[in-house]
Amino acid sequence: MNKEDFIIQAFLNKKNGDDGAIVGKWCFSKDLFFENIHFKREWFDLEQIATKAMLVNISDAIVMNAKPKYALLGLALPKNLSEDEIVILQKGFLKTASQFDIEIIGGDTISNDKIDISITIISKLNGKAVFRKGLKPGHLLAYTGDLGGGLEGLNTLQNGGILSLDHVFIKPRLRPDFFYELAPYISCAMDISDGLSKDLSRLLKQNKCGISWFESLSDNILYSGEEYEILFAFDEKEYENIANIAKKHQVKINVFAKAVKGKYEFSGKEHHF
Amino acid sequence: MNKEDFIIQAFLNKKNGDDGAIVGKWCFSKDLFFENIHFKREWFDLEQIATKAMLVNISDAIVMNAKPKYALLGLALPKNLSEDEIVILQKGFLKTASQFDIEIIGGDTISNDKIDISITIISKLNGKAVFRKGLKPGHLLAYTGDLGGGLEGLNTLQNGGILSLDHVFIKPRLRPDFFYELAPYISCAMDISDGLSKDLSRLLKQNKCGISWFESLSDNILYSGEEYEILFAFDEKEYENIANIAKKHQVKINVFAKAVKGKYEFSGKEHHF
Repeated sequence: MNKEDFIIQAFLNKKNGDDGAIVGKWCFSKDLFFENIHFKREWFDLEQIATKAMLVNISDAIVMNAKPKYALLGLALPKNLSEDEIVILQKGFLKTASQFDIEIIGGDTISNDKIDISITIISKLNGKAVFRKGLKPGHLLAYTGDLGGGLEGLNTLQNGGILSLDHVFIKPRLRPDFFYELAPYISCAMDISDGLSKDLSRLLKQNKCGISWFESLSDNILYSGEEYEILFAFDEKEYENIANIAKKHQVKINVFAKAVKGKYEFSGKEHHF
Repeated sequence: MNKEDFIIQAFLNKKNGDDGAIVGKWCFSKDLFFENIHFKREWFDLEQIATKAMLVNISDAIVMNAKPKYALLGLALPKNLSEDEIVILQKGFLKTASQFDIEIIGGDTISNDKIDISITIISKLNGKAVFRKGLKPGHLLAYTGDLGGGLEGLNTLQNGGILSLDHVFIKPRLRPDFFYELAPYISCAMDISDGLSKDLSRLLKQNKCGISWFESLSDNILYSGEEYEILFAFDEKEYENIANIAKKHQVKINVFAKAVKGKYEFSGKEHHF
């Protein structure tokens, strides 16, 4: 067991172990976005840092089928950040909050040796929550969009290259409207943050399922993290409904496998830099 | 304006600028507890780190007159922390959560170069919220307990000394039962985290009040941070009720000044190490 899994295990109860925690009609989610862990300063400008920090958190709410309403910001910022720089950082938070109709209602700010951001998103369920749990043998497994951009972007940056402003590694592409319409027809979902292979292994393990692949996926697809595309599953009889919703929202759906009785062990590389 | 005030200002709206944010019957609060900013590893064992991280967050909920229900933990932990060490850290979180009847429902865990903790506490209001706003000229200003221990503890540690396990710097003393009973009789409150002088200046500024001192307080009292005693104010006519509640809970109340028309400028040192 790796250390993150060990820690999650230690705190496990019926509410956690998902992208967000559901309490009544509310969904609470919290993700950390730390310098030199999730980003390097030479890769992102300050507005991009704040924007991505918000988006990876909003992504958790969306895949639970919840609409973000409020945010708390925990900001650990170096003392040498100027007021002008803080204003640029704010711009990223405020613009993204406004795009998703989120009100920033509080948080905490401290001095630190680097930019470490912790965000809590408070969301309201849009109907029934979608959990990681719910997969049954026979359900089809699918992911949205194209995978591989996260890894490709990371490699480019690590080799000194530059990414376009709208590259998925800089600014994840979320699909709220599509997902809210999709939600009633699927059995489980999670966002792909650690790579399809790793996240899939979590989904299968939690649901005690194995997998029957329809095709062999490339390493680029399997081991690309920070995609924020959506991994989900559904009963075959919902195929047409789902295809129609995907078409309406112009979202590409890749049905790549079927859940089966059995178990799946993750054996690939994890996404880290 | 210092940088923290500048940032708070930039995000200011009607819900923030308080210890917690109120949404309906809920109170949301979030505080960071970072290594080398709030604590040093040689000062605290791992259980004490987790315990204090929880307590400083729970304190925010209490002074809003809210009862903590759920917590989200953001844990940034060094890779070299062993599983045994993680279990000790967990013990601090779990024991404190259980003492306050809090369920840990989620969060995020990442690798980092040091132990940086971010906690979100989700609380339910116990009647009406108590805000920082509400102070009027004529109200009496008071604080609970004895101040000075935070500064004295910090000095001892910085000079290589050791503190007892129950020292206020190691384990803040919270007063939930007292405060929940006190709440209906007071006009405003906040916990003393940055020192009475600094926190008082925030309270007075937010309420556009000045101060008339009853006595001259020592630097030890004025500039001692991380006390988590409670600064509050009340109309003189509530004096007897408040004295009775304090007596019942054996809490010392220090009435040290009266709010007046005018303004108060903070001119002392801030609490940092």
